[in-house]
Amino acid sequence: MHNQFLKTDPWRLIEERYDAQRMKSSESLFALGNGVMGGRANFEEQYSGPSLQGNYIGAIYYPDKTRVGWWKNGYPEYFAKVLNSAFWIGIDVAVDGEPLDAARAEVKEFYREMDMRRSVLTRRMRVVMPGGAEVTVEAVRFLSLERRELGVIRYSVTPLNRAAEITFSPYIDADVRNTDANYDEKFWEEVSTDCDAVQSRTKKSGFEVAWAQAVALEGAAFSCETEPERVRQTATVRCEKGQKATLYKYAGICSSLNHAPADLMAAARGVAADGLRTGFDALLKEQEAAWERRWHGCDIVVEGDDEAQQGIRFCIFMLLQTYTGVDTRLNIGPKGFTGEKYGGVTYWDTEAYCLPFYLATTGERVARELLVYRYNQLDKAIENAAKLGFRDGAALYPMVTINGEECHNEWEITFEEIHRNGAIAYAIFNYIRYTGDHAYLAEYGLEVLLSIARFWAQRITWSEARKKYVMLGVTGPNEYENNVNNNWYTSYIACWCMRYAAEAAAWVRTNRPDDYARICSKRSFDEAAETTLWHEIDANMYLGEDPELGIFLQQDNYLDKEQILVKDLDPAERPINQKWSWDRILRSCFIKQADVLQGLYFFQEDFDLETVRRNFHFYEERTVHESSLSPCVHAILAAKIGDMEKAYEMYLRTARLDLDDYNREVEEGCHVTSMAGSWLSVVEGFGGMRMADGRLTFAPRLPEAWRSLTFKVNYRGRVLTVRAAHEGVEVSNEGEPVDIALYDTPLRLEAHAAQTEK
Amino acid sequence: MHNQFLKTDPWRLIEERYDAQRMKSSESLFALGNGVMGGRANFEEQYSGPSLQGNYIGAIYYPDKTRVGWWKNGYPEYFAKVLNSAFWIGIDVAVDGEPLDAARAEVKEFYREMDMRRSVLTRRMRVVMPGGAEVTVEAVRFLSLERRELGVIRYSVTPLNRAAEITFSPYIDADVRNTDANYDEKFWEEVSTDCDAVQSRTKKSGFEVAWAQAVALEGAAFSCETEPERVRQTATVRCEKGQKATLYKYAGICSSLNHAPADLMAAARGVAADGLRTGFDALLKEQEAAWERRWHGCDIVVEGDDEAQQGIRFCIFMLLQTYTGVDTRLNIGPKGFTGEKYGGVTYWDTEAYCLPFYLATTGERVARELLVYRYNQLDKAIENAAKLGFRDGAALYPMVTINGEECHNEWEITFEEIHRNGAIAYAIFNYIRYTGDHAYLAEYGLEVLLSIARFWAQRITWSEARKKYVMLGVTGPNEYENNVNNNWYTSYIACWCMRYAAEAAAWVRTNRPDDYARICSKRSFDEAAETTLWHEIDANMYLGEDPELGIFLQQDNYLDKEQILVKDLDPAERPINQKWSWDRILRSCFIKQADVLQGLYFFQEDFDLETVRRNFHFYEERTVHESSLSPCVHAILAAKIGDMEKAYEMYLRTARLDLDDYNREVEEGCHVTSMAGSWLSVVEGFGGMRMADGRLTFAPRLPEAWRSLTFKVNYRGRVLTVRAAHEGVEVSNEGEPVDIALYDTPLRLEAHAAQTEK
Repeated sequence: MHNQFLKTDPWRLIEERYDAQRMKSSESLFALGNGVMGGRANFEEQYSGPSLQGNYIGAIYYPDKTRVGWWKNGYPEYFAKVLNSAFWIGIDVAVDGEPLDAARAEVKEFYREMDMRRSVLTRRMRVVMPGGAEVTVEAVRFLSLERRELGVIRYSVTPLNRAAEITFSPYIDADVRNTDANYDEKFWEEVSTDCDAVQSRTKKSGFEVAWAQAVALEGAAFSCETEPERVRQTATVRCEKGQKATLYKYAGICSSLNHAPADLMAAARGVAADGLRTGFDALLKEQEAAWERRWHGCDIVVEGDDEAQQGIRFCIFMLLQTYTGVDTRLNIGPKGFTGEKYGGVTYWDTEAYCLPFYLATTGERVARELLVYRYNQLDKAIENAAKLGFRDGAALYPMVTINGEECHNEWEITFEEIHRNGAIAYAIFNYIRYTGDHAYLAEYGLEVLLSIARFWAQRITWSEARKKYVMLGVTGPNEYENNVNNNWYTSYIACWCMRYAAEAAAWVRTNRPDDYARICSKRSFDEAAETTLWHEIDANMYLGEDPELGIFLQQDNYLDKEQILVKDLDPAERPINQKWSWDRILRSCFIKQADVLQGLYFFQEDFDLETVRRNFHFYEERTVHESSLSPCVHAILAAKIGDMEKAYEMYLRTARLDLDDYNREVEEGCHVTSMAGSWLSVVEGFGGMRMADGRLTFAPRLPEAWRSLTFKVNYRGRVLTVRAAHEGVEVSNEGEPVDIALYDTPLRLEAHAAQTEK
Repeated sequence: MHNQFLKTDPWRLIEERYDAQRMKSSESLFALGNGVMGGRANFEEQYSGPSLQGNYIGAIYYPDKTRVGWWKNGYPEYFAKVLNSAFWIGIDVAVDGEPLDAARAEVKEFYREMDMRRSVLTRRMRVVMPGGAEVTVEAVRFLSLERRELGVIRYSVTPLNRAAEITFSPYIDADVRNTDANYDEKFWEEVSTDCDAVQSRTKKSGFEVAWAQAVALEGAAFSCETEPERVRQTATVRCEKGQKATLYKYAGICSSLNHAPADLMAAARGVAADGLRTGFDALLKEQEAAWERRWHGCDIVVEGDDEAQQGIRFCIFMLLQTYTGVDTRLNIGPKGFTGEKYGGVTYWDTEAYCLPFYLATTGERVARELLVYRYNQLDKAIENAAKLGFRDGAALYPMVTINGEECHNEWEITFEEIHRNGAIAYAIFNYIRYTGDHAYLAEYGLEVLLSIARFWAQRITWSEARKKYVMLGVTGPNEYENNVNNNWYTSYIACWCMRYAAEAAAWVRTNRPDDYARICSKRSFDEAAETTLWHEIDANMYLGEDPELGIFLQQDNYLDKEQILVKDLDPAERPINQKWSWDRILRSCFIKQADVLQGLYFFQEDFDLETVRRNFHFYEERTVHESSLSPCVHAILAAKIGDMEKAYEMYLRTARLDLDDYNREVEEGCHVTSMAGSWLSVVEGFGGMRMADGRLTFAPRLPEAWRSLTFKVNYRGRVLTVRAAHEGVEVSNEGEPVDIALYDTPLRLEAHAAQTEK
């Protein structure tokens, strides 16, 4: 399965061969991001081969009118999508007047590298032009992590077989479209175009963005051409054979998220000019320093498995490129900044998978921003629930959103895949459990929790027939079932939410009376009455079990299905989501992604090992893992029950999913949120990290193939390093003393000390 | 609720007032049709007020690419829709050069009439033009029932207050679009345009149609102007004050369904020229004679309730206009020829509601054509099932179709509302039971039945947990539930289908051995093995019942829902499909349309009266009747159990649905298929007509308000007339002697004799 195209290297992605058929995949894999913007690894110069242009600015979206066969009440009117924005990297190149286009030249050598240590993309190629000129090209590009509105390019051309005139036309093209547009609309309109800068506005949503370029080419002066939405400067230099001509391009990219629209052109020009003044080398140094800080406390070292090493670093790197926690309007789209798919918008992936990653790697401030993002959208979530008929401040967070409004438009998801509400509450719990920051409840958390609990209390209904509370019409995480009754996971997390909201209310009442009074008034919260109802529902909730099999029932009637196992499926029929009709999938027992097991993972402390083992075996045999978010949960639970072979098998399915392009779809973009799952499967699976009894605990167990695993985590202001080998485990602490547990044995880890255990 | 706008009249729709706001509704109600084409009652002359242009030719469709949020395997690629076609009725009129447009003139008098006895639309109006000229206009239009490709118009203008020059520009405009187009495409393209005729082709589907006009205006010669897709002839006459100018327009409309494309222009011109030669008065006589024959054997007379009289005649009339059984490529779209909605394509409405109407009113030949339509699409139904993963010649008929391919694109309908397969089998049974034409099984029926039975045998699966056969993932007739398990109606009809297919096979084997051999070979039918499986499933099928309530369970978990009754719903929240979110509707216990009761209606002989009564009371209290196809079944069952008040209430909801525009949507078109339901509620409800023990039986019970009810039915070559009054019932027979039953008492009705019973 290993991708022969990419070279295995611990810190770099390397591609050493030009292949037009792989171009779109590589554009995804080599994508750059600095947390606020990003883009695919398109070439700067003209490229007429297959390519998906993509440059994205976080939170700049367009409400694309939904496409639906038969509209029904409560369906969202639009799908907000982060847009493909101006192609700011453009540099057309001509050699003796002949345009450079790798698709039309003979590519003699090709080298592309992403240096993950510093987020710098380098490309070198040697080509023979149709007219016979042979040149080398080197392009180095990065998005500054230090200066979030700056993009930097150094672009060199060297004629190899003769002297030549090299023409550089650095340009910005804001006349771009989305491939994914429901009605083939163009989403941008021009505001103004000038010699070195262009400003555009998104239709309907009215965001404005200006892009400016400052360019330098030794010994040459630029002329300028503009047409609407396009800026282009051109200069020509003569190079002797073997003499290199180097263009520097600094792009300022400023949006109305951070500037007044009237100031945007000036702001973008200012950023670009500052870049030019500072110079490429100094900016690169800044970049290296910023990324060194960024990597602090989150690296993973795997000894004995180079592919695993590269795979996990790539996951961490992509997550670090995608989200930095500087702006609560930003979040993590399933594809990050690597493609258009899923519209760059927020799913429950963030809370269920990404939050633990950021919590443990980038520290609590960054993770907290993710929670505040949802807090800021609470009133929209209440509106969303009201549109469906819920009352009294009940909140239903959207399945897909960018501004708090629901964007997904399949009823079986929008209305029914409501477990997302649980994940959002769980993230608050998870954050506080890990950080100890109970004050978060008083500031933001309780309002969200009580609004979610209110939703569950209305969504769950009393069944007179069963004399139990039931939850009807649900889609669980396993989207290969729709509209089922009593989905165990959803019902379980709903009850947990109500209990936790009640606890949270009591904590705030006791510890932060002023906040409590403010919240009660703002949210018309009647703690006594509401929590009584919550406890009543919790105590009488129907949760399906099969006593004979000793398992929790994914949903009512699940055992009525024909019980075929994944191992008995004809491999030619997989993946079933490509080979089978949706009808057949829905009626089969096959599970797309962890469902009951997701609950056993979230609530590990509630279940003994035997329960986990029985459920794991039953459901794992029926799970096809056709969501990239599935195997990580199975990996963690398999490690927990000591099935290291299965854990490793599951880990392998996530770790190099994109690098090895298992699903033949990486050209659409990378599975960024599921990379957090890969991290979880290493740290929580093989590292055995979890919170238990208020302590961070580790219980490493390595796959056979690995010599050692070393990972770092941020924990309450300290960086802990866990090094696990087959011979033993060492945990070291760069900060103040801290109480942890190793294989369930409590221990105090002194400052700057290590503890070793066999 | 009575519509004050329309005058109550037994044989006519009459409108006596001009109201621009009502124009679209009246265009639907006054629509014309001759079974092969039809159109809305648009004005001939220019009209700039709100209007929905609509002229439809049966079976001329376009495959409109489906609009879907997230495509999944098995979804249909297009929705075939019968198209709005050329506006052939056009006659622009100018008075002294000033265009006549009722929306821009002062309308002093207005009269519109549909004569349902002969299908002739008449409009008279007196207007004062902006320039001061006062004129009367009279337009008489019909679609010839005798000459199915001919449309006829007589159009007169009389200046009232001064002499005037009247200009007539009869035209055909083929540059038309559908309002309902998923991507705003134009569906037609020009083939050729000539002085008096135009020919166009539908994109993708490649149907061709030519329209030609032959016009006459005494004392005037026409000039001609053409532009692509538009034909226009113009002539002017001078009229003294009070002198009438009369234009005759004959339009030939010929399609490639019936002619070679190259011959179309000539054919259309021939039809128009023949019309001109025959002349308006003779054509009108033909029309009257043809419609007199058409009404023979299907009228209903209600004494004591003029609104009911008009309502039921309107229903019959619309059904007679929509389908005549001359062409097996035609069927009955939910809106007939009265609007674009539902694309003019075939639903299960045809088999469940329309077939019994045509069977009893127009005779078995017409009804048989409807069955053959499905027979002709059997191979497509097998393909349709195969796309979903079914094997071995299992057939799933589409939910929506025109050419046999599935067009609906919601999975919960397409894949799950599979009871339609049952209705198609039931129609065969129903046809044979009524006509005694068992030979139909050998010719066509058995192939369809065994293919449907094969589908059920695969769709039903064994539940190891229940030790029963179950049917999972179903949507019943009640579309306010989706993806339920063990929908009673669907499971019941599926079992019945398997039993009936087995019986049919035995009948053909015994009675028509040659056909049997042919069918076994053609369909690879292994009777012994397959029918054994069918009986095994039938014998061990799970059918939900609640013993305590004594009812059949609409589906698993239905009683887990909060059991709120319709009477307790706030009227402001109705109709719930407008006031509630789809989420809330799905999770409520409210029923859109008869579901269990549909089964009790179809299989009346299987259930005793007490069972019907218990189920009726339980489900009627929960049914909101938000499908126009619902109340008729309730009306019939209510009459059956003697609840005449409820029967009448239900009947009222269907009888004048469109005339009184209960749902404020008649402007989109009339509910043509549900008009068959209205007929059923009168004839099977109040007339108590049904087949029992092989006899046609009647058991009339009148609503209090009616003095008498007289209805005619075609039965095995005879026309029977049933006249029921509160004093007694008389059944008379225009044909050969026949055995029937009256109130379950068998009797022989002699030729041309009547039988009376108190």
